[in-house]
Amino acid sequence: MLDLTLLGSGGGMPRVNRHLSSMIINYKGRKILIDCGEGTQVAMRKVHSGFKSIDIICITHYHGDHIFGLPGLLATIGNSHRTESITIIGPIGLKEIMEGILVMIPYLPYDLKLIECTKESLGINVSDNILEVTKEKKLNKSNLILSTIELDHSSHCLGYSIYVPRKPKFYPEKAIELGIPKEFWSRLQIGEKIQYENKIYNSDKVLGGRRKGIKLSYITDTRPMDTLLNFIAESDLFVCEGTYGDNLDIEKAIKNKHMTFEEAAELAYKSNVKELLLTHFSPSIEDPNIYKLNAKTIFNNTIIGYDGYRKKLTYN
Amino acid sequence: MLDLTLLGSGGGMPRVNRHLSSMIINYKGRKILIDCGEGTQVAMRKVHSGFKSIDIICITHYHGDHIFGLPGLLATIGNSHRTESITIIGPIGLKEIMEGILVMIPYLPYDLKLIECTKESLGINVSDNILEVTKEKKLNKSNLILSTIELDHSSHCLGYSIYVPRKPKFYPEKAIELGIPKEFWSRLQIGEKIQYENKIYNSDKVLGGRRKGIKLSYITDTRPMDTLLNFIAESDLFVCEGTYGDNLDIEKAIKNKHMTFEEAAELAYKSNVKELLLTHFSPSIEDPNIYKLNAKTIFNNTIIGYDGYRKKLTYN
Repeated sequence: MLDLTLLGSGGGMPRVNRHLSSMIINYKGRKILIDCGEGTQVAMRKVHSGFKSIDIICITHYHGDHIFGLPGLLATIGNSHRTESITIIGPIGLKEIMEGILVMIPYLPYDLKLIECTKESLGINVSDNILEVTKEKKLNKSNLILSTIELDHSSHCLGYSIYVPRKPKFYPEKAIELGIPKEFWSRLQIGEKIQYENKIYNSDKVLGGRRKGIKLSYITDTRPMDTLLNFIAESDLFVCEGTYGDNLDIEKAIKNKHMTFEEAAELAYKSNVKELLLTHFSPSIEDPNIYKLNAKTIFNNTIIGYDGYRKKLTYN
Repeated sequence: MLDLTLLGSGGGMPRVNRHLSSMIINYKGRKILIDCGEGTQVAMRKVHSGFKSIDIICITHYHGDHIFGLPGLLATIGNSHRTESITIIGPIGLKEIMEGILVMIPYLPYDLKLIECTKESLGINVSDNILEVTKEKKLNKSNLILSTIELDHSSHCLGYSIYVPRKPKFYPEKAIELGIPKEFWSRLQIGEKIQYENKIYNSDKVLGGRRKGIKLSYITDTRPMDTLLNFIAESDLFVCEGTYGDNLDIEKAIKNKHMTFEEAAELAYKSNVKELLLTHFSPSIEDPNIYKLNAKTIFNNTIIGYDGYRKKLTYN
């Protein structure tokens, strides 16, 4: 299960009533944060999200509205007496940016592990009670699979997806029929082969077919791209930038490498996602709800994001 | 006249209901900002203070609660299409800190002038319609005089005072009596010597004695120091840190190099300031007003600061 909260829904500059786009994802009590604009730590306090349990921070790109909250957040996590390392993932340039940031926060009681510009998907496991990127190559054995895609923005920018694999269904009646003792069932459930009384039992004898896991995708900032359709396909929740609500702002969107609500909804429609959550609204938009229909006429299952929006994603 | 607004009144970490300590000072439509913790730009929006007219930023020290808002503020000032340079003043280490910050904001449409660790007072004049540090040595001829003092904190830290000199009173009846034509009066008013019909007129013939100007002092973070008494003496407003309200927290105050309300009030009392404005409250203090008496029994003219507190300081 993923429990996620949209901490902020704004782009560009923080407004008095709207924090900058970021999302906190809770998996088994441990947290992944995506993006960290100025004020993200205050947005976290507003939704009563603790700081100490943030294990991974994913940065989409290094524009201020996505990173200026990092010095404050890292310092506040330090004040929470965390000592376990934190993994920060971001596009090319991460090391340089973090060197700049660390001039402002020279003392942290924990290490930072930096993963720059990963093109391969990463397995993430709960290890020693924190979420860590695993070196295990069989990604489906991970608790979570994190994938990235290079977006089409005015700087290097990564889109993210987080996938929670689901184990195939286990049929105890088949195991009984085959005479396999109960103590081997849990190993069969995770796909292992069992040797018992000179016989070999493959797990496929007792397991059902593949089952879809939970998929969350987070895409900001970018123009629409055809390659996104496959990347976000079948997402349970597709979090997407909708910098401009008005269809007439398409030229601004093209110039500034952003999207309109309509364009985000088209991506959602074509990629068969379950739900679209719009975010990263231009600071010039007072109330994004007035443009809701521009998205909903194309993809009905659209939510206009707001600070503090919360959702639980579970297996179907 | 100085028109000042306390943008935030918190120390350490931003709270949901309290921004971090900083103050914006308006002099003839141009602005000086003192300190810039995370969220300062949002605090400015709350009080409807524009960004483009900030000419000088004074930093007390480089702890996060005083500087983490700088990247966002400088970027937002850039978005306001300012092209005139901004002067940043701070204790030793300013250049290194700014190099770190500028990694996050590589493109600004204006220059930054850095003044590190000034021990001499600086004259500030409105020049080309912006506030700039002047090279003129006669400080009393400046619009403003900025002075600094090295404080007693856990890092290099500067206290600031801003003084608006007041011209002596001009007596037109004396000028008439001496037969000085009106076209020379304005030069006499600013202390110049006039030669007319082979006679020399010194301005002291038509001017009254010295008059006290407006004095604002801003002291955070520090332990009390005897040298502060002279530095803040006769301030119209003495803005001072009161990190701890409870007198029982004196040991914490000593350990963390901060002050209690009581200690700040003692400084105010001994230095004959007009008014004390307490700020920089510990994030653990829910409502600093409950400790008000700890200051007021020592110095009655104490104000417990709050975000958005505003005051006009005028000549008496």
